[in-house]
Amino acid sequence: MQMESANKGIVTEEMLKISKKEGVPVEHIMKGISKGRIVVLKNINHNIEPVGIGERLRVKINVNIGTSMDHDYPEEEIEKYRIVENIADTIMDLSTGKDASRVRREILRISKLPVGTVPIYETAVKMLESGKAIVEMDEDSIFRSIHEHLKEGVDFITVHAGITKDLVERMKGARRTVGIVSRGGTFIAAWMLHNGKENPLFKDFDYLLEIAKEFDATLSLGDALRPGGLPDSLDQYQVGELLNISRLVRRAREKGVQSMVEGPGHVPLDQIEMNVKLEKIITDGAPFYVLGPLVTDIASGYDHINAAIGGAVAAFYGADFLCYVTPAEHLALPNVNEVYQGAIAMKIAAHAVNITRFREDYMRDMEMSIARGNLDWAKQLRLSIDPLNASRVRKERYPKNGNVCTMCGELCAIKILRDYLNRA
Amino acid sequence: MQMESANKGIVTEEMLKISKKEGVPVEHIMKGISKGRIVVLKNINHNIEPVGIGERLRVKINVNIGTSMDHDYPEEEIEKYRIVENIADTIMDLSTGKDASRVRREILRISKLPVGTVPIYETAVKMLESGKAIVEMDEDSIFRSIHEHLKEGVDFITVHAGITKDLVERMKGARRTVGIVSRGGTFIAAWMLHNGKENPLFKDFDYLLEIAKEFDATLSLGDALRPGGLPDSLDQYQVGELLNISRLVRRAREKGVQSMVEGPGHVPLDQIEMNVKLEKIITDGAPFYVLGPLVTDIASGYDHINAAIGGAVAAFYGADFLCYVTPAEHLALPNVNEVYQGAIAMKIAAHAVNITRFREDYMRDMEMSIARGNLDWAKQLRLSIDPLNASRVRKERYPKNGNVCTMCGELCAIKILRDYLNRA
Repeated sequence: MQMESANKGIVTEEMLKISKKEGVPVEHIMKGISKGRIVVLKNINHNIEPVGIGERLRVKINVNIGTSMDHDYPEEEIEKYRIVENIADTIMDLSTGKDASRVRREILRISKLPVGTVPIYETAVKMLESGKAIVEMDEDSIFRSIHEHLKEGVDFITVHAGITKDLVERMKGARRTVGIVSRGGTFIAAWMLHNGKENPLFKDFDYLLEIAKEFDATLSLGDALRPGGLPDSLDQYQVGELLNISRLVRRAREKGVQSMVEGPGHVPLDQIEMNVKLEKIITDGAPFYVLGPLVTDIASGYDHINAAIGGAVAAFYGADFLCYVTPAEHLALPNVNEVYQGAIAMKIAAHAVNITRFREDYMRDMEMSIARGNLDWAKQLRLSIDPLNASRVRKERYPKNGNVCTMCGELCAIKILRDYLNRA
Repeated sequence: MQMESANKGIVTEEMLKISKKEGVPVEHIMKGISKGRIVVLKNINHNIEPVGIGERLRVKINVNIGTSMDHDYPEEEIEKYRIVENIADTIMDLSTGKDASRVRREILRISKLPVGTVPIYETAVKMLESGKAIVEMDEDSIFRSIHEHLKEGVDFITVHAGITKDLVERMKGARRTVGIVSRGGTFIAAWMLHNGKENPLFKDFDYLLEIAKEFDATLSLGDALRPGGLPDSLDQYQVGELLNISRLVRRAREKGVQSMVEGPGHVPLDQIEMNVKLEKIITDGAPFYVLGPLVTDIASGYDHINAAIGGAVAAFYGADFLCYVTPAEHLALPNVNEVYQGAIAMKIAAHAVNITRFREDYMRDMEMSIARGNLDWAKQLRLSIDPLNASRVRKERYPKNGNVCTMCGELCAIKILRDYLNRA
């Protein structure tokens, strides 16, 4: 158990591995875990290398995959996993298709990365499959799904424990532009309205903590009320839920359970800094896991770029973990290529922040610049974020003189100056 | 003459048009022009709507097109213009192919946007075509190209007037990782080293001002010594040139000539703010025209995303004008699709900043969010930054129920809550 060990000042094997991988003193890792400012993603039942997320560690990126009811091809999701396994730091399987649990087990089996899920999706899908309404699900079934996922080795789960009955009731008459856009959050919200009861994940949070603790899993406290559009950013519902979540973070820490906090969503560029700072202050530095954020609402088809802008800025201000967004967001379930494009875009955002903090990461950029100055094309292509793609573009449009590229040709600045200085 | 009129307190037709288009009081435009903090891009010989760039106006984006010696297909460049004319705010024609002047004249004829060029490219190409070395070009030919471009109606020209003999001589023994990456800058640098003379554009800057003034053209003071990689960011050569440029800005203002300042390039995320502030302080608020900037060196193949991150951050801190970068940057001359991808990416960056400042721009995001909340798909697609592409993605993967999309299908959060609240 990472947190209990950290509290006792015991260095675990996982802490050592993270310390080595990040090049950060193990004491920092241990203290960070103890304070709840660093989480270690690794279920005791999952045979993977642990990934550390949080204070002064590298910014990480998550890639979502998973079948949907309208597009249910498990083998395509496995292909999505394969294409990003060397780019992403974690994978979330959000399958809601027919054989969702089979997809999850397969991803857990093959993944070398920590795997996250949203167990309530399964609870909801099972209701629909048995011809019932989602709002009729019973409380036990919610916890049963959670237990099943964690027992199978899921490393982190999104639980919408911060959305409470009073918040949802206040929302009824309210003018929220896009309402609720979190799937899991909506299930809980509709359930509470229908049954007139408090959110079981909030009410029985201690039970949730017990289950998580059994497997040393990390709770990702989902923001059911995240804004679904810029007009809803930082409204009373988002902030109200964050306040609830901050209390849950404290309770998790008290019980020695690791937790992180999920954040928006759609955020105007001038509100990203305050979103991050608010989370950090209110939760006393809990790892912040943001979805993008998207800095405009109109970039459908290009939301991976939109999210890369928001993600880079959020990480710069202290967000620890960036969930990618694909070009298909707001339009359709992404295909394999869109998953890849989304992962690359968010990787660029994370890397741009990591190189300002970690000399080792920066060295790749340094080497690239040296290769550019030397017109060393083989090395430039090899150091590119996507060497195959870079090589393809260059090959397709190979210059007359192999030292340069077709953009400037013989007018290449680097070549001219080098030639001139060599002659001079 | 915009600046002379502004200095006299005279409101011109162009100021009125910009005031109307931007929704900003004409007095602000007039004062901004008078102080040299706003430029009006419009040559008296070019029949276009003027574009204002600078203090408290919308962030604008530029798209570069143009043939190269290794890829010389004028009709393809015209196609590039056509595909971005409704996305870009300005176009730069950087043609260096055989019939470069013909391409330029054609772009000037068809463009409804201000057109910029780098006249020294033509001077250099003519030297090579007549079998001579670039360093042999005579000073008059440099000014002849400039005069020719402006007479034809070019609205703004990049002139590398800030790179001086002493800076280049200091660079000789220096360790700059990527050297000089500005084409025009290299021509001047090599010329100075070869001829042992001062940069004619610097030495005879008053003559340059006279030519520009004749056509009310704007000088874009090029940063020949911009960093070509993160390791060179904010080094003494970049800053030294910026200091020279700041003095040229003052001289241009004294002579009633409009000028703006070009900036990097490759800039680590944590140095973008200081780059912008340094330029604004040192030049007393001259419009700042940045290339990207790129926040990592390793994103070849995806540099449009890299530049969108840097561009959004730069604009957020006060950069006024963003030059796009395409996915082909560092690899090849971009093709038509890459030009389009680059333009869209930078448009997202500019829009993300503009909506934090202009209510009218924000309203499109607001409408989009309302359409999302209403599951109004026709409107969502229409309001997208690229409606054709968004419609294609949705059509390819049309959901079973037309109210939702294939990502969540029947589990659509918005639909569930709406259905539930309607029933309840």
